[in-house]
Amino acid sequence: MIRSLFFAPANRPDLVVKFPRFSADCSVIDLEDGTPSGEKAVARTALAKTVDGARKAGLAGMLAVRVNVPDSPHYLADLEAAFACDIDAVVIPKLESPAQALAAVHWIEHGCKGRGRRPMLIGGLESVRGVLNAVRICDETPYLGAVYFGAEDFAADIGGRRTRDGDEVATARGWAVMAARAAGLVAFDQAVLDIRDDALFTEDARRGRDMGYQGKICVAPAQVALAHAAFSPTQEEIDYARRLVDAYEAATARGIGTIDFEGKMVDGPLLKRSQAVLAAAGAA
Amino acid sequence: MIRSLFFAPANRPDLVVKFPRFSADCSVIDLEDGTPSGEKAVARTALAKTVDGARKAGLAGMLAVRVNVPDSPHYLADLEAAFACDIDAVVIPKLESPAQALAAVHWIEHGCKGRGRRPMLIGGLESVRGVLNAVRICDETPYLGAVYFGAEDFAADIGGRRTRDGDEVATARGWAVMAARAAGLVAFDQAVLDIRDDALFTEDARRGRDMGYQGKICVAPAQVALAHAAFSPTQEEIDYARRLVDAYEAATARGIGTIDFEGKMVDGPLLKRSQAVLAAAGAA
Amino acid sequence: MIRSLFFAPANRPDLVVKFPRFSADCSVIDLEDGTPSGEKAVARTALAKTVDGARKAGLAGMLAVRVNVPDSPHYLADLEAAFACDIDAVVIPKLESPAQALAAVHWIEHGCKGRGRRPMLIGGLESVRGVLNAVRICDETPYLGAVYFGAEDFAADIGGRRTRDGDEVATARGWAVMAARAAGLVAFDQAVLDIRDDALFTEDARRGRDMGYQGKICVAPAQVALAHAAFSPTQEEIDYARRLVDAYEAATARGIGTIDFEGKMVDGPLLKRSQAVLAAAGAA
Repeated sequence: MIRSLFFAPANRPDLVVKFPRFSADCSVIDLEDGTPSGEKAVARTALAKTVDGARKAGLAGMLAVRVNVPDSPHYLADLEAAFACDIDAVVIPKLESPAQALAAVHWIEHGCKGRGRRPMLIGGLESVRGVLNAVRICDETPYLGAVYFGAEDFAADIGGRRTRDGDEVATARGWAVMAARAAGLVAFDQAVLDIRDDALFTEDARRGRDMGYQGKICVAPAQVALAHAAFSPTQEEIDYARRLVDAYEAATARGIGTIDFEGKMVDGPLLKRSQAVLAAAGAA
Repeated sequence: MIRSLFFAPANRPDLVVKFPRFSADCSVIDLEDGTPSGEKAVARTALAKTVDGARKAGLAGMLAVRVNVPDSPHYLADLEAAFACDIDAVVIPKLESPAQALAAVHWIEHGCKGRGRRPMLIGGLESVRGVLNAVRICDETPYLGAVYFGAEDFAADIGGRRTRDGDEVATARGWAVMAARAAGLVAFDQAVLDIRDDALFTEDARRGRDMGYQGKICVAPAQVALAHAAFSPTQEEIDYARRLVDAYEAATARGIGTIDFEGKMVDGPLLKRSQAVLAAAGAA
Repeated sequence: MIRSLFFAPANRPDLVVKFPRFSADCSVIDLEDGTPSGEKAVARTALAKTVDGARKAGLAGMLAVRVNVPDSPHYLADLEAAFACDIDAVVIPKLESPAQALAAVHWIEHGCKGRGRRPMLIGGLESVRGVLNAVRICDETPYLGAVYFGAEDFAADIGGRRTRDGDEVATARGWAVMAARAAGLVAFDQAVLDIRDDALFTEDARRGRDMGYQGKICVAPAQVALAHAAFSPTQEEIDYARRLVDAYEAATARGIGTIDFEGKMVDGPLLKRSQAVLAAAGAA
């Protein structure tokens, strides 16, 4: 389970070293938006040391580096620097085609030899073209293990405006999660920038989980615990799932495949969802 | 008009024989989710007898058989058994590509010779991949006459959760009906599992009809009448359409193509919709 | 900025001559839905004179002609007549493929020689197939400068019904604007037919602008000013953008790339959106 994707700027090793206390499932050292243009080269040069700082601080979850966008002058240098570090994933923002990830694939296949495991890629679906190409990106990008839907960048790219209910990005958010899940990838939902509005984060996370997202971008430390709560089954969900599975198994033993369970007509799909809840609960 | 798709388990011939009293526009004998795994082979062997039971009971609407999913071990045997029966349609659940229907096409073209009519196919768009491939499925699957959007299976497949307002499946539900209607297919909307909540069914059906769906999956006998009401023009709609068509024809006779009708600016599209309402009312 | 697309029937030169006082950013002489079938040939014959009437009246914005749909018997004659006039754009309704625009491309490339500028095309995405093919249409149609999403025609084609909140067309409306914006085209949002309901128009325009639309179809003169207000940055938006850009620039000078600004975590995307607001304000 990767329920939280927490970012800290690559030019802030003082924050990166605090990653363990923020307890994100995946912590990301950000060379892109979080690091100002004038600081990017220095932050890249210091990346290995910054990564070591997080590792030595005793990070439990995954550690990733977000590089700059593929069409930036930083991209190739960022990739080379990132894959030289002891990381679990590289995040490519504003991914618009599988081809853009090929330089990363090169380093995964030729630059990481001798390590125990190969890092995976996490792609950002956050431009209009990236969302339109999401199916191809998710199906055809080697080593892609997860994607996130970036609503803020998407809104900036399309020339729209963000609202609290987020209806303006509903189609893009819905398309991105379909592309990800059809390809078997982990799907991270959009960020909530209102960092002191916990209720908004939780409501937005609930909607995202309903849609099929499995985790969420976190832009403030306090959002990590909210994400973990929102993307883990509640006790109520676990209890309901247990009752449903029990009732269904009892019915099946009597040759009945569709049951009237607590007011709902239940057959395969609800059984499958309840089994998934129990599996997630067991894994948590 | 096919406004209702009502399912009963294939291992329950006692229910199938009651199809005539449920009065669905299309009644479906279900070998898939409705029939437990252990009963599927027996139900298939008895299928012809079960179909005969429904026919002899005097079924007025269409009669169909839903086979198991294409990647199941039952699929080919189910198809062979289904097409050997006196049915109007075969329902293929979780259809993900036109190729998956080719075995059914074989039976339609080579196994049904000598009958008066060829059965049609009804496809289930209810996996994430199936929805993503919906345009190709609807455009390129021979003998496909209708599809349904299965929200419960879709939610199970994507790993999401269903809510009363259904916003979490809005993009998938919207994409599926576009694919179906562009190809000229009948589109059936998602099921409502809360079998004692008539208001929810009616509200969900209203939304579906607004989107372009022409009928709805029914999982309880009482839902059939609700579906027929929801997917038929109301008297109010018929009266409005009649007034609009009259006003428009009068204006056209005076060389005017756009009219201010009861507060709305009316030209081609509203005229076309009103004519469709009157045609549906005449056909009902 | 083209915020309004205002239509008047081609058989009503008395209305066309009033275009200047309606002040739309783009005024359209409509040979399609606005002109009854029996009047189309006459209106086409008189088109050059009608266009001259608008020009002589001192029209400031763009002037366009909407031809009949590509599969109509009028299409080629309409195109020939339209491109012979002094117009800025030709509107092709119900565009379903780039190929349908090739006859227009012919006239642009071979029929308009010697003029100062070539007219552009504006395509209507308003059939189900047109929306499904929107990406290809927007990417591959030469001289396409803008598209509009036509919800009324879309609803008529899919067999649905329009509601005030418009949820029934949300997926189509969301897909069309993505296709347009990814290709760099201007995107016009759906019409509001309730011509005396200013609040509805403004609310619908707000949603459209949130989604990325840059203007709106207007079916009554009073809607033009509403569209201009809705699709221009408000003073509040301009002030916010100015404060945000200032704060971000000050932070960047201190080596900080992500700031806590008025309760939101701000980095690249919000900066980019604020810069766009200021650019639009300056251009207005």
